Amino acid sequence: MQALVMEEIRRLQLREIDVPTETGPGEVKIAMKAVGICGSDLHFYLHGHIGPFWVKEPMILGHEGAGQIVAVGEGVTNLKVGDRVAMEPGIPDWTSRASQLGLYNLDPAVRFWATPPVHGCLVPEIVHPANLTFKLPDGVSYQEGAFVEPLAVGMQAVNKAHILPGQTAVVLGAGTIGMMVALAALAAGVSRVIMTDVQKEKLAIAGGYAGIVPVNVSEVKAADRVRELTDGWGADVVFEASGSPHAFKGIFDLVCPGGCVVLVGMPPAEVALDVVGAQIKEARIETIFRYANVYPRTIDLLGSGKIDLKPLISRTFPFAESVAAFEFAAQGSPEVVKTQIVF
Amino acid sequence: MQALVMEEIRRLQLREIDVPTETGPGEVKIAMKAVGICGSDLHFYLHGHIGPFWVKEPMILGHEGAGQIVAVGEGVTNLKVGDRVAMEPGIPDWTSRASQLGLYNLDPAVRFWATPPVHGCLVPEIVHPANLTFKLPDGVSYQEGAFVEPLAVGMQAVNKAHILPGQTAVVLGAGTIGMMVALAALAAGVSRVIMTDVQKEKLAIAGGYAGIVPVNVSEVKAADRVRELTDGWGADVVFEASGSPHAFKGIFDLVCPGGCVVLVGMPPAEVALDVVGAQIKEARIETIFRYANVYPRTIDLLGSGKIDLKPLISRTFPFAESVAAFEFAAQGSPEVVKTQIVF
Amino acid sequence: MQALVMEEIRRLQLREIDVPTETGPGEVKIAMKAVGICGSDLHFYLHGHIGPFWVKEPMILGHEGAGQIVAVGEGVTNLKVGDRVAMEPGIPDWTSRASQLGLYNLDPAVRFWATPPVHGCLVPEIVHPANLTFKLPDGVSYQEGAFVEPLAVGMQAVNKAHILPGQTAVVLGAGTIGMMVALAALAAGVSRVIMTDVQKEKLAIAGGYAGIVPVNVSEVKAADRVRELTDGWGADVVFEASGSPHAFKGIFDLVCPGGCVVLVGMPPAEVALDVVGAQIKEARIETIFRYANVYPRTIDLLGSGKIDLKPLISRTFPFAESVAAFEFAAQGSPEVVKTQIVF
Amino acid sequence: MQALVMEEIRRLQLREIDVPTETGPGEVKIAMKAVGICGSDLHFYLHGHIGPFWVKEPMILGHEGAGQIVAVGEGVTNLKVGDRVAMEPGIPDWTSRASQLGLYNLDPAVRFWATPPVHGCLVPEIVHPANLTFKLPDGVSYQEGAFVEPLAVGMQAVNKAHILPGQTAVVLGAGTIGMMVALAALAAGVSRVIMTDVQKEKLAIAGGYAGIVPVNVSEVKAADRVRELTDGWGADVVFEASGSPHAFKGIFDLVCPGGCVVLVGMPPAEVALDVVGAQIKEARIETIFRYANVYPRTIDLLGSGKIDLKPLISRTFPFAESVAAFEFAAQGSPEVVKTQIVF
Repeated sequence: MQALVMEEIRRLQLREIDVPTETGPGEVKIAMKAVGICGSDLHFYLHGHIGPFWVKEPMILGHEGAGQIVAVGEGVTNLKVGDRVAMEPGIPDWTSRASQLGLYNLDPAVRFWATPPVHGCLVPEIVHPANLTFKLPDGVSYQEGAFVEPLAVGMQAVNKAHILPGQTAVVLGAGTIGMMVALAALAAGVSRVIMTDVQKEKLAIAGGYAGIVPVNVSEVKAADRVRELTDGWGADVVFEASGSPHAFKGIFDLVCPGGCVVLVGMPPAEVALDVVGAQIKEARIETIFRYANVYPRTIDLLGSGKIDLKPLISRTFPFAESVAAFEFAAQGSPEVVKTQIVF
Repeated sequence: MQALVMEEIRRLQLREIDVPTETGPGEVKIAMKAVGICGSDLHFYLHGHIGPFWVKEPMILGHEGAGQIVAVGEGVTNLKVGDRVAMEPGIPDWTSRASQLGLYNLDPAVRFWATPPVHGCLVPEIVHPANLTFKLPDGVSYQEGAFVEPLAVGMQAVNKAHILPGQTAVVLGAGTIGMMVALAALAAGVSRVIMTDVQKEKLAIAGGYAGIVPVNVSEVKAADRVRELTDGWGADVVFEASGSPHAFKGIFDLVCPGGCVVLVGMPPAEVALDVVGAQIKEARIETIFRYANVYPRTIDLLGSGKIDLKPLISRTFPFAESVAAFEFAAQGSPEVVKTQIVF
Repeated sequence: MQALVMEEIRRLQLREIDVPTETGPGEVKIAMKAVGICGSDLHFYLHGHIGPFWVKEPMILGHEGAGQIVAVGEGVTNLKVGDRVAMEPGIPDWTSRASQLGLYNLDPAVRFWATPPVHGCLVPEIVHPANLTFKLPDGVSYQEGAFVEPLAVGMQAVNKAHILPGQTAVVLGAGTIGMMVALAALAAGVSRVIMTDVQKEKLAIAGGYAGIVPVNVSEVKAADRVRELTDGWGADVVFEASGSPHAFKGIFDLVCPGGCVVLVGMPPAEVALDVVGAQIKEARIETIFRYANVYPRTIDLLGSGKIDLKPLISRTFPFAESVAAFEFAAQGSPEVVKTQIVF
Repeated sequence: MQALVMEEIRRLQLREIDVPTETGPGEVKIAMKAVGICGSDLHFYLHGHIGPFWVKEPMILGHEGAGQIVAVGEGVTNLKVGDRVAMEPGIPDWTSRASQLGLYNLDPAVRFWATPPVHGCLVPEIVHPANLTFKLPDGVSYQEGAFVEPLAVGMQAVNKAHILPGQTAVVLGAGTIGMMVALAALAAGVSRVIMTDVQKEKLAIAGGYAGIVPVNVSEVKAADRVRELTDGWGADVVFEASGSPHAFKGIFDLVCPGGCVVLVGMPPAEVALDVVGAQIKEARIETIFRYANVYPRTIDLLGSGKIDLKPLISRTFPFAESVAAFEFAAQGSPEVVKTQIVF
């Protein structure tokens, strides 16, 4: 089958490659229809690794996928041929201790698409477990379906925040993940999201959503804006979505007594944490790793119209131009939130 | 001061009555602008009591109030003359064991407006603790402000449900409180509310809101509709808002494994509970009593436009016609959600 | 293999029966060493069914088991031949929606030992999944290991109660499950368990444990004793472990504002619930179904000496006298907490 | 009245000083019987300040106190003359936003004994709010009563950890607060506490308690010991009680997937936090500031015998020798856990 293969650092090609094609028990085969390009795909492409995960053998990229069922394995009852679906890309060992606890995202044995040595989904057909494949409602397009994966990260962040409706959230960083977190937080009922960045293009996109208050922190102090908008009390939740060590400076000035800080961004090194600043507010700090059990709810929200991702699909390429799509995405432009490839 | 006084069962009049007028430390004086008529006001009026609380002395009615600050006591810093406000009607002993725990609504010593022997707020001016008086944003009218009190009941129900965005809720009963719960649940991020009743007028009003699926249970079984809309899994949360013992029949058929049932309605007698039905799903049953710590968030949601109460203000009377307002409300009509009195 | 087979109602025999003996991947084979007799075993024996589960074919009884590993299947790394172990008797479909959430006890497809048509463990050797088989520490005997299963029910009840150390618990019913709940609650840090029953022999056994205050409710009102011991505030948690509909009368008089009632006992019919009594305290009602993810912690507690089950092993029979063991247990005597069979 | 007054840095004297003596409404007057010396008392004595709180005027020291009621103000119903009591030393504004939420320890307006400019309790008689004064059970001595205050810090840490019985805890640092955390964790049901320090005298005291596994981290790596004792899974909770920035190095190696780290110690500066290390385990980080709503439970645990503080009362001085007591405590010796002053 023709697939988008990363051969080595900075070398991609669309070429034939052998992949499993038999649909085993509990599995489905999916004709891919749309795949989003994620920052991690780009990082592998440009740097050859993420942390300890090195691309040592040619690997198919892509893990944000949606498609249509073309075959159904033995024992599968929740799906049928023709169903339009989005797929959760990490396959854990369901009998591991973490999985038994419902924390299957934390199972160290998880096999995750496009994390070496596991192939990704930029390939015309793929076989996947039925219990990680979720039907899309009629009104949700394949491209929105392929957007479920990054949105699921935002949903996981919101899970941890235990949001109550009418609360105020801060999101530090208006990149793609920051946007996902902000949309999930709004869906979870916050009255407003105060969203910070230094790039005005990103803030302009964010500010296009009702409920998001963009703050350019090269001009205004985040703490001042939060104080003003919360009568001095502070935000109930602060989501760190920039991954920048600078964002940790004064982070507890933003949060209210008893509030929560969720660390979504992955800083490249240790950060300086003001423990006493957290303690005097008894702040709770939550962290996330991918997501678990959020796909059905995420898809329901898209179906209900409570989250609108369409303004964030910045650019679409056909599968045949996958290499160009990666080159475009790798340029990195503040107006581009998500680049997708369609089949 | 002229006030709406309930003299005895089924006898109301607008007449002079002595009420405190001095604004003490930590208190504010408010010129009332709008007051909603609640089912409990009507119950006192028509039956002379609710449970053990009998109206033995003439009592001013009304506890759903909004107004404007006209005086500010010593030490008050959060409010100033001219501020538009809504008031939380129950004043606890802040040093009680329940209050120390943050459960001030459960303090048995709470003095609650229009619960005998405490006067209500259908009076031109009232003195109230500043920490139970909350500023309304510019876009929120006094009539919406007076609607915060019943909406706060819905918000308390939602607090207990621990809703995650994209979940499905059922609300049993499309009366005023059912509507409040449904709007709070939608604000909290549920993808849909399946709302049951037998009165088609009420269901029509409910169905006017995006996200509410009205189900007339005289025609369709609630469990069938829930099964169909949740792929057989069940709803994450079921809010019992009818107060009808019948609603408890089969209630655990509606909820998913690990789901939650919140009992908001107050049945007139003991109900028959299917304990084993709850156990095989490990259902959690939550109960509420009024609300605590929800006014600021409720008001923020109104200000953000995430909850729209305007379609539910069915009829407005001037204060001078308060007696007529009560007579109108007492007739009870399925098209009428809320009757309010303005000053 | 020779096994204790229930042929039909009130007819048991020790006889040859075919059972699987091959140790597949992820499985272990265990030589049984001790099996406890549970009320549900007795109920099948005496009545032929529990609820909708009828014994239609000969079935091996027993689900409270401990033994020693005699064979280890492919891929098993956590256990080796010779290990002393206790086994969790319910095998779910790990890919079901409930299991993915960590609620594998709620998976409707679970196969549970000695629940028709699944054979139990009163057989010399049994094959079982390795991830449901847990090593016993050196100081914990096989008979204590066989006691982990009922204790796990108490642990699950305590999971739901969210106990904080120093709280006060009430346990209604001093039967075997009531004792399990009481010991789990004490292990979880309650300062005292107020334990009610009408049988003085059971209360005497309970009262032998430090921290259990036995209350004979044929002589003293539970509510009076709770009020006295909690300065009128009420107990933080009430565990209903009697399964008696009578226990629900006045149950909310026992609990404190914001407290919790955990329903462990399974009443034979619907019970009368005082909803308003629950609401004025905002009581939370939790329910349990067996247990999930509690075996490792339960075994650790036995190993640490924090729970002592030895006084509750009332009578032990050799496997060859299994039928006599069931006859003895079926007589039901208030001094007998647990009858076990050893190999 | 004669009191232990800190005049300025490193100058204490027992001398006459004016303090309020009138017992107002809701207040009680207590004859002090025992007062513990806390690290913060010593810090003020030796350095003149803690963070921004400088001793600018002569101030009575001491905030760990127990005594006997000698007078009862108007409206006090929970206490009477002669009652033996322990006192919570921080008096918040009960109408503040934090207090309404039950987070009265986070009210910035709290007046806390022996935090400038508020006098402490090293004085023969003191007037205090009745709702912060708690009766001691018969078996609990005044010296144990004076120990409730530091133990309450451990209890608050345990509140945040949401411990389930049978879990494993790590406590980093075997100082007084580490010991309080360890005892609270054991009371909360952990099977074992793995306790680290470099001082063998402290570890020897810790190791004297059943359930505490002392680990000298100058000889053994904490992570190795945790791995060994938890089958490689990690501890459910790690309490950082050393306040040392070094303790944060590798702290997430100690915790299990989905586990919790509670920051109790107050590091003198920012610490280096391994965010990604926390994320791959989705670790939750909790922080505490003093305590709220824990005195009644803490006292109940002492009364029940579940916590034994007696081995930790290292040295007792009479009130007349208070200055010598401070000099002794200020020397700091690894065998000394708590020095107390009795009246």
